[in-house]
Amino acid sequence: MIVIATIKEVAKEAGVSVATVSRVLNNKGYVNEDTRKRVMSSIEKLNYKPNAVARSLFKKKSKMIGLIVPDIKNPFFPELARAVEDVTNSEGYTLILCNSDDDFHKEQKYLDALKQKYVDGFIVVTSTLKAEHVEDHNIPLVALDRSIHPEIPAVYSNNYTGAKQATQYLLELGCRQIAHIRGPHHINNAEERYKGFTDVTKDQGLYDPKLVINGGYSIEKTIGVTSELLKKSPEIDGIFAGNDMMAIGVLKAAERLGLKVPEDLKIIGFDGIALCKTTSPEITTMAQPIYEMGTTAARMLLDFIEKKEVINTKQVFQVQLVERQSTRVSLKR
Amino acid sequence: MIVIATIKEVAKEAGVSVATVSRVLNNKGYVNEDTRKRVMSSIEKLNYKPNAVARSLFKKKSKMIGLIVPDIKNPFFPELARAVEDVTNSEGYTLILCNSDDDFHKEQKYLDALKQKYVDGFIVVTSTLKAEHVEDHNIPLVALDRSIHPEIPAVYSNNYTGAKQATQYLLELGCRQIAHIRGPHHINNAEERYKGFTDVTKDQGLYDPKLVINGGYSIEKTIGVTSELLKKSPEIDGIFAGNDMMAIGVLKAAERLGLKVPEDLKIIGFDGIALCKTTSPEITTMAQPIYEMGTTAARMLLDFIEKKEVINTKQVFQVQLVERQSTRVSLKR
Repeated sequence: MIVIATIKEVAKEAGVSVATVSRVLNNKGYVNEDTRKRVMSSIEKLNYKPNAVARSLFKKKSKMIGLIVPDIKNPFFPELARAVEDVTNSEGYTLILCNSDDDFHKEQKYLDALKQKYVDGFIVVTSTLKAEHVEDHNIPLVALDRSIHPEIPAVYSNNYTGAKQATQYLLELGCRQIAHIRGPHHINNAEERYKGFTDVTKDQGLYDPKLVINGGYSIEKTIGVTSELLKKSPEIDGIFAGNDMMAIGVLKAAERLGLKVPEDLKIIGFDGIALCKTTSPEITTMAQPIYEMGTTAARMLLDFIEKKEVINTKQVFQVQLVERQSTRVSLKR
Repeated sequence: MIVIATIKEVAKEAGVSVATVSRVLNNKGYVNEDTRKRVMSSIEKLNYKPNAVARSLFKKKSKMIGLIVPDIKNPFFPELARAVEDVTNSEGYTLILCNSDDDFHKEQKYLDALKQKYVDGFIVVTSTLKAEHVEDHNIPLVALDRSIHPEIPAVYSNNYTGAKQATQYLLELGCRQIAHIRGPHHINNAEERYKGFTDVTKDQGLYDPKLVINGGYSIEKTIGVTSELLKKSPEIDGIFAGNDMMAIGVLKAAERLGLKVPEDLKIIGFDGIALCKTTSPEITTMAQPIYEMGTTAARMLLDFIEKKEVINTKQVFQVQLVERQSTRVSLKR
């Protein structure tokens, strides 16, 4: 049997106040030497453990939160993770990092394992969890980057509107044969961005299903499919890539075919990751406020955990056009 | 007072074996209904908690490890973190992510806070912790990427030899005015790489202290200082950048000055991060086996935690030349 005393019991046993026990434990403030000895012997006698684990067992709280992302190697997620950790760390919480590879079973295993450790809540970037899986767990949770269900708290950006803006921007620059490299069908932000693109091009009578291909949110896959597309349809003069990684793939494909960017082909991405500034030309993008999204999700989750009132459980951020050399001749290199 | 019973006490109280209690708890295997009820009532009576937190309090083990990196946004660290997490996850451990900003006090706060949570061990990328700080904590720890002290277990690569190879490679390509953009003085791998560079250039009678500048492991800083350097010393025909981020900065500086890479200027980096393949031209680098270093550090730490014999507490990996377009005309674009 394991017995854990509380600080009150220690104080009572030693005949002092809780504040005095606390001063002894933290070695702060004046405590009479006899009193100190009495407190120490009560602590020993009662097997008092002033530590985080005993506290979490008592309160069923661990001051830990879990962050589940598909893969921390994807450059979008370190920026989010850093933002979340900055908030958790400043609020005395600890952040557990989980890579799910977008695998439903891995996500479920993480949720189960971390609940066993009394994790206080989760921030989850998921394309596979549904409302019923989250509700089953009955623990505070905020969806980040991708919404799970209208009823589940979430922080994400306005992907549909951002995609419309990106497409309109290419039109304003004079592009008339605009292709879209879209993300995976099972990821809802990819679907929203695709819808934004098609709604604008259909509206302009410029929609052509042959000019929409799937780059799988991957540089390598995008280089391959975009090279094929540009060979088949050399009239393409603008490409809206569904994320920045794919925009880099488009840039590489264009380069291999000897196309000049932005003169022959204008490219715009989506996300606003730092990587867009490392390429030449630098890539124009619809930037999400990534850091702010991460801190907002973290603060919302901590408010749920600490039972504070959360007025807005759905925070949708606007994306912003950041013009760089891949679309503007005047900005070139 | 909090009382936690053990599984043995539950079994004794219910008059069954520990295996039977376990079958009831896990809802696996056949258990007679009366027995099941008896076990359940013993569990309730004794306040038995079959969870990870109670177990960690009992064993003073949490099956959690802490990973302290300077900043997960720096593209080298997500690759390491993913490798570490793949191992911890497959072995049933949980990974806590900490961003220290290379700040000694932040590192100390993380070590203290996580020890309070009975974290089983640490993997630390640090330039400020010394042996005495680590020993004070008396907990398994493996230094990763940067050695702390010859007596402290560590996994890193042979920075000195790799830097010599990088410099010799530029010489073999015909470069005679070779500059080095070095990393910060307080980071020992930056110092080792600097030594490798100077030893080779001195040996060849080509060393010139004016051709060594500090880029602070930062793209932005490197663009600035390298632009200045190339204007002052236009005869420079090769640059060894102390890491890949700075190699990207060198590439951008060269581009802004209208220099052709690799024809006018050859560039080699160090690290082998995926980012080197996203630039145009792609950047030649001395690649560390980043993923393997991460998994090796994680396995070594788990061996320490599980008190297995660790024969080699210092694992030094060789780096490998990866030739790309920034040094080879034949590979150009």
